[in-house]
Amino acid sequence: MQSWQLPEYIADILPSAARQLESAKEQLLALYRVHGYELVSPPLLEYSQSLLTRIDEGLSLKTIRVVDQLSGRQLGLRADITPQVARIDAHLLSANSGVNRLCYAGSVLHARPDGFLSTREPLQIGAELYGHAGIESDIELIDLMLKSLAVVNVPELTLSLGHIGIFHALAKAANLEAQQATTLLQLMQAKNAAAVRERVQQWQLPEQWINAFETLPTLYGTQKVLHTAMTTLPDLPEICEALQQLQHICTAFANHNIFIDLSELRVDNYHTGLLFAAYSADWPDALARGGRYDGLGKYFGRSRPASGFSFDLRDLIGHLPPVEKLRGIRVSVHDATAAKNEIEQLRSAGECVIIDYTPESNNIKGCDRQLVWQNQQWQLIPL
Amino acid sequence: MQSWQLPEYIADILPSAARQLESAKEQLLALYRVHGYELVSPPLLEYSQSLLTRIDEGLSLKTIRVVDQLSGRQLGLRADITPQVARIDAHLLSANSGVNRLCYAGSVLHARPDGFLSTREPLQIGAELYGHAGIESDIELIDLMLKSLAVVNVPELTLSLGHIGIFHALAKAANLEAQQATTLLQLMQAKNAAAVRERVQQWQLPEQWINAFETLPTLYGTQKVLHTAMTTLPDLPEICEALQQLQHICTAFANHNIFIDLSELRVDNYHTGLLFAAYSADWPDALARGGRYDGLGKYFGRSRPASGFSFDLRDLIGHLPPVEKLRGIRVSVHDATAAKNEIEQLRSAGECVIIDYTPESNNIKGCDRQLVWQNQQWQLIPL
Repeated sequence: MQSWQLPEYIADILPSAARQLESAKEQLLALYRVHGYELVSPPLLEYSQSLLTRIDEGLSLKTIRVVDQLSGRQLGLRADITPQVARIDAHLLSANSGVNRLCYAGSVLHARPDGFLSTREPLQIGAELYGHAGIESDIELIDLMLKSLAVVNVPELTLSLGHIGIFHALAKAANLEAQQATTLLQLMQAKNAAAVRERVQQWQLPEQWINAFETLPTLYGTQKVLHTAMTTLPDLPEICEALQQLQHICTAFANHNIFIDLSELRVDNYHTGLLFAAYSADWPDALARGGRYDGLGKYFGRSRPASGFSFDLRDLIGHLPPVEKLRGIRVSVHDATAAKNEIEQLRSAGECVIIDYTPESNNIKGCDRQLVWQNQQWQLIPL
Repeated sequence: MQSWQLPEYIADILPSAARQLESAKEQLLALYRVHGYELVSPPLLEYSQSLLTRIDEGLSLKTIRVVDQLSGRQLGLRADITPQVARIDAHLLSANSGVNRLCYAGSVLHARPDGFLSTREPLQIGAELYGHAGIESDIELIDLMLKSLAVVNVPELTLSLGHIGIFHALAKAANLEAQQATTLLQLMQAKNAAAVRERVQQWQLPEQWINAFETLPTLYGTQKVLHTAMTTLPDLPEICEALQQLQHICTAFANHNIFIDLSELRVDNYHTGLLFAAYSADWPDALARGGRYDGLGKYFGRSRPASGFSFDLRDLIGHLPPVEKLRGIRVSVHDATAAKNEIEQLRSAGECVIIDYTPESNNIKGCDRQLVWQNQQWQLIPL
């Protein structure tokens, strides 16, 4: 093994990409700021019982654990920032009984990569709104998610919509046991319609529920799917409400490409209702995901309605606008002291001034001008 | 244990502090940019053998280890970014045989806090210059360190200077064994002059070296100390050179408060020459530290002269200028759709517009105006 090798799915971010990410992050945080979202920065390391909240197997598998040298207790490296923000809303910001809008930008660590193209150190950026249950706040967040992706230059977005409440309503109405519901949800998440069909037939559910579970994976496509769902799914109040919410979102984002997928349930364990994601034509996975996760803060002492989205900025690096490369001004080390005032003035004006320690070589990277003493004054001349 | 409790020396950064840190970070990275420093962002997690480079006991004790689920090998969470940047200069940027100026800003994790006032998750910011051995690049970095602390508003700075080359020259000339040198260095670092004296007498070193090691801890104070050192320390070429370098720095920073301490050797294991630090009147420990660490990159395949500094931005939060609180503009949720264009125009102009989901309560945090439909147009009126 070479001393300079990095672990798999771990990488350095080198100069131009690092500036691109930093600049995009600054723009995103400025965007959230003018929408009223306050920045929080939870720690990389917490007691793992806090990070994992309820039993969340997916998150648990992703979370790297260590033993705390001070307390002897188990710590986890955060694999997701949302549960931390829910803790902050529930505990530290609990004096505010109204709406809390919070945003964040920070690294998370995954024990294993999500896929072949993933990093184990995503740069998770997101925004969350606590304290309002209505569809209006979901609309605000979807709008902010789409604006975020516009900031980072993603073209031809498709807004994908789902609703985990439909599956839960069916599971409850069909009296599925908890284990059955979990199995079925996993098959839905794996988009394995054949296995869903096989399983519900094997369980000998009443015909009505067999039909419903078999139909769910077929309900994807344009907005018309909502009409089909209304006529083919059982007439349960939770399902009607979910479909109405989806209809509402379609109306609010009528000028966007919308894709409905009622069996698109690949979400975190904490999601409870509306689900949304953004896709672009040139990337196989969602670029950003979000949804409603009412009650996540209950574990920390305050149950509140909540909705939010997040994405890995490193995933989007191919889309990021190039950061303008500053063309520098060379100054020979022999002139650096004498030209001190001129150099500082140029830097204050935003110019990059680079001291050249090997003036004899006259070979300095990234400079297109130099500062020299000519005709009794300091002058900028082209290189 | 409460679910919301955090481990000791670990804390959330809440809204106003998070914005302050983010804003200070942006300003610091802009400062480094106009000085020609390129941003790099090494990973949080690496093979521990890469992070620890040579046997560095101090760094090793600070480094949290985990087992890599993919390779089964030992990983470390970085406790210091400098060795990572040395790896990047040596390996990834090795095509450039000239000077590499690199900067970084990222979290590091410590298994135990450095002190009672420390966090276990410092936000390390720093700048490093590879490929030049002369004192001019040390001056460039000290200047940049002082400018960094000016950006974050630290008043009444003192520049403290030392040079580890003096101790090493004495240890070599006195033929100390490696273990003896290590013991003596630790006693010097602990500022335990009595134990230093006792030890060198016990070892029965020649009188000349006993005197020199006993003198070293007394050589602190104003610039005059350099003169005293010149006359009292043995006349070794390395010591003369070190004292000349210190004299050179004193001249270059003649308009600053300077404190010389030739036994101030509390540095990382990789430091090899000049040492510098910045103190302020109101903080017991150094606010920023740096020095020369020639050859750190050798471990990664390219030995180069190098100098740099770093600091924990979280340490400085008490000094940071307050971030201007945006006074928001309230819009009732009932008006949000109709006023969409006006809202986006206000946001583009940098105004924070907040949708109020409980318009009946009329109690919204942080707003001093509202957008309402009056006299057939959207108007901003005071709240």
